[in-house]
Amino acid sequence: MATPYNQIAGQSVERLAALSDGIFAVAMTLLVLDLHTPLSEAIHGDAALWHALAAMAPQMVAYLMSFLTLGIFWTGQQAQLNCFERSDRHLSWLHLAFLFAVTLMPFSTHLLAEFITLRAALIVYWANILLLGAVLFASWRYALRAKLLKQEVSHEIECAVERRIVVAQALYAAGAALCLVNTYISIAVIVLVQLNFAIAPRVRYLQGI
Amino acid sequence: MATPYNQIAGQSVERLAALSDGIFAVAMTLLVLDLHTPLSEAIHGDAALWHALAAMAPQMVAYLMSFLTLGIFWTGQQAQLNCFERSDRHLSWLHLAFLFAVTLMPFSTHLLAEFITLRAALIVYWANILLLGAVLFASWRYALRAKLLKQEVSHEIECAVERRIVVAQALYAAGAALCLVNTYISIAVIVLVQLNFAIAPRVRYLQGI
Amino acid sequence: MATPYNQIAGQSVERLAALSDGIFAVAMTLLVLDLHTPLSEAIHGDAALWHALAAMAPQMVAYLMSFLTLGIFWTGQQAQLNCFERSDRHLSWLHLAFLFAVTLMPFSTHLLAEFITLRAALIVYWANILLLGAVLFASWRYALRAKLLKQEVSHEIECAVERRIVVAQALYAAGAALCLVNTYISIAVIVLVQLNFAIAPRVRYLQGI
Amino acid sequence: MATPYNQIAGQSVERLAALSDGIFAVAMTLLVLDLHTPLSEAIHGDAALWHALAAMAPQMVAYLMSFLTLGIFWTGQQAQLNCFERSDRHLSWLHLAFLFAVTLMPFSTHLLAEFITLRAALIVYWANILLLGAVLFASWRYALRAKLLKQEVSHEIECAVERRIVVAQALYAAGAALCLVNTYISIAVIVLVQLNFAIAPRVRYLQGI
Repeated sequence: MATPYNQIAGQSVERLAALSDGIFAVAMTLLVLDLHTPLSEAIHGDAALWHALAAMAPQMVAYLMSFLTLGIFWTGQQAQLNCFERSDRHLSWLHLAFLFAVTLMPFSTHLLAEFITLRAALIVYWANILLLGAVLFASWRYALRAKLLKQEVSHEIECAVERRIVVAQALYAAGAALCLVNTYISIAVIVLVQLNFAIAPRVRYLQGI
Repeated sequence: MATPYNQIAGQSVERLAALSDGIFAVAMTLLVLDLHTPLSEAIHGDAALWHALAAMAPQMVAYLMSFLTLGIFWTGQQAQLNCFERSDRHLSWLHLAFLFAVTLMPFSTHLLAEFITLRAALIVYWANILLLGAVLFASWRYALRAKLLKQEVSHEIECAVERRIVVAQALYAAGAALCLVNTYISIAVIVLVQLNFAIAPRVRYLQGI
Repeated sequence: MATPYNQIAGQSVERLAALSDGIFAVAMTLLVLDLHTPLSEAIHGDAALWHALAAMAPQMVAYLMSFLTLGIFWTGQQAQLNCFERSDRHLSWLHLAFLFAVTLMPFSTHLLAEFITLRAALIVYWANILLLGAVLFASWRYALRAKLLKQEVSHEIECAVERRIVVAQALYAAGAALCLVNTYISIAVIVLVQLNFAIAPRVRYLQGI
Repeated sequence: MATPYNQIAGQSVERLAALSDGIFAVAMTLLVLDLHTPLSEAIHGDAALWHALAAMAPQMVAYLMSFLTLGIFWTGQQAQLNCFERSDRHLSWLHLAFLFAVTLMPFSTHLLAEFITLRAALIVYWANILLLGAVLFASWRYALRAKLLKQEVSHEIECAVERRIVVAQALYAAGAALCLVNTYISIAVIVLVQLNFAIAPRVRYLQGI
């Protein structure tokens, strides 16, 4: 079924990991370009600079949130890549689609920082997170079906990866839905969900996830 | 024939792969800098923001197309590098020329997004794709002649790599030629060709390529 | 105690090192975007260009200082990563927090270059250095407690790593405190401390550190 | 003589190579940000766009020249790193200084593209090349003295590396000196020297170098 060319294309998990690390590194660092320093003409002393920095709080929150998002999905993709025995061209392109969603994150973040009170900005941001999760879910399902996983990956881990993605996306969707009430509440809930996944506190209800 | 210096220069396929992954990662992520968020002064509500985002469709298409292009050529270069037993300084410089064409892609993309109705922009974009393909073809031919391929690379694969590049470039050239009719048709055809290579659907006519 | 998902997340020191190298590489290179070339309309000859370049001295100093800072912390993180036998998800997130502080460095640098006479800018810059040191210290302590270090890491090295961080941070804090007198003195002292760590001259008092 | 901390700092040639590849990748790709697309308001058809692109020739030359420079020095550094058995903190900092000069290259390039007729711009550009060569020379000498080279590195190669750097720098200096006549001649000579090193034609006089 495989043509000769496709036998040699997209085989290397290592190269995929290297490209992914590179794209995450650039996307994570580009986020900071959103943090514009205050204009020097407008600042005439320490007090004015502290005020200007305090006024940047929304951008800082959007920046921190996006770094958390990228950190979570980097960890999630890494966990998958570590489980792959080998890759094929379909899996390779699924991860390129995932990386496409990663490169969109600085744009979505900038949109949210600029229009933090508008639901449209929050929905675009959430759609970006949804895309990241959906492609990662598809990648895992495909790898299972195409038997690309290492032998030592137990059925328990297979289920845990899927459950983790579904639960996380459900929580993000719930958080995003709160934008019907207020975008700030929505952002606060999303950040709390993210901190939970990053810090992994020993909360009883979430421990089994 | 080789001078002492050239015996040690450009030997490492791993370093070449690492530099390539880095450059692809940066180029792929820089593309997104073209997506400027709408100016906040001009937007007074969700409806206005949705409209502004819809008006960004040409940039989004150019962005997606360029990501596909870079993904295709990353896969193509990776397939070659995996076949190389070792490198030498000529092969190394051929791949540096290839990477030069990769770094030009954000510029060509920006030009196309800005002047999507002008043939000149489309021809520059196509010339960039042509350059990528031509250098990759030259790299494969050189590696064959200089006996840099791994032993397990069969004659069938040798031919498949060349055929793939030639067929793809022929399709891109045909797509680009359609700009004589209309640049939108031209772009649509190029995107379809790219999606074919990315998704690799089981189309009968293309399966043997 | 570990859930199935957390058993496979954040295990790879190699991926962590690759992401770190990528983020340091981007952050170090982004610093240069602060160095704006003089506007060509304002320059009418060689003398004018030399003057304009000389006027960029504060930015150049801030740039050099930040490159030194990032170089020092890259070396420090690398020394730690080389000592880790393996990683876990907590250690992984500590290093993501460290990388977050790394991505903030271009912003802090830009702020300092723009407002080199204001204490607020210097305090933000110092807070960034403090954050880098504090997270690196926490990472080492956590790795010790969670028994993630390689066997060959002696107790002497364990103490040397902690002592190095504490001494360096004490010197940076002392340097930053001098901003009560004058920000230029403060910067000069910080640069001298950094050059000491970079060049490691055989000064008797500091040799044992 | 080595303190406990310095025993573990800067040991890894692999990490140094990874950071170097990352910085070269970003610097090479950032160069393209200098290529600004023409303003869309000023362009009213294909002919106007072709003219605007032709007017970008100086930037294109500066861009190509800088890519060649970075390619040459990437190859040169790679050749050295491949010869190192291990690293130490001094060698590590020499290479960080080298990478500092690499990150300056986009700035020097931008300056040269903007002020292509001014000697000051050309001298800054040449000083950047000189710094790259000088640090690489120092790194090789230090590695020789500190016995960090692999056993298989012959005395012939030891001399070839030094000779290569000295000859190249002499040619660059001669090219730069021609700016006393005209900066265009100077640039042309530097590009020819670079193409010679990149393409390595079998010119009799240069073959032994």
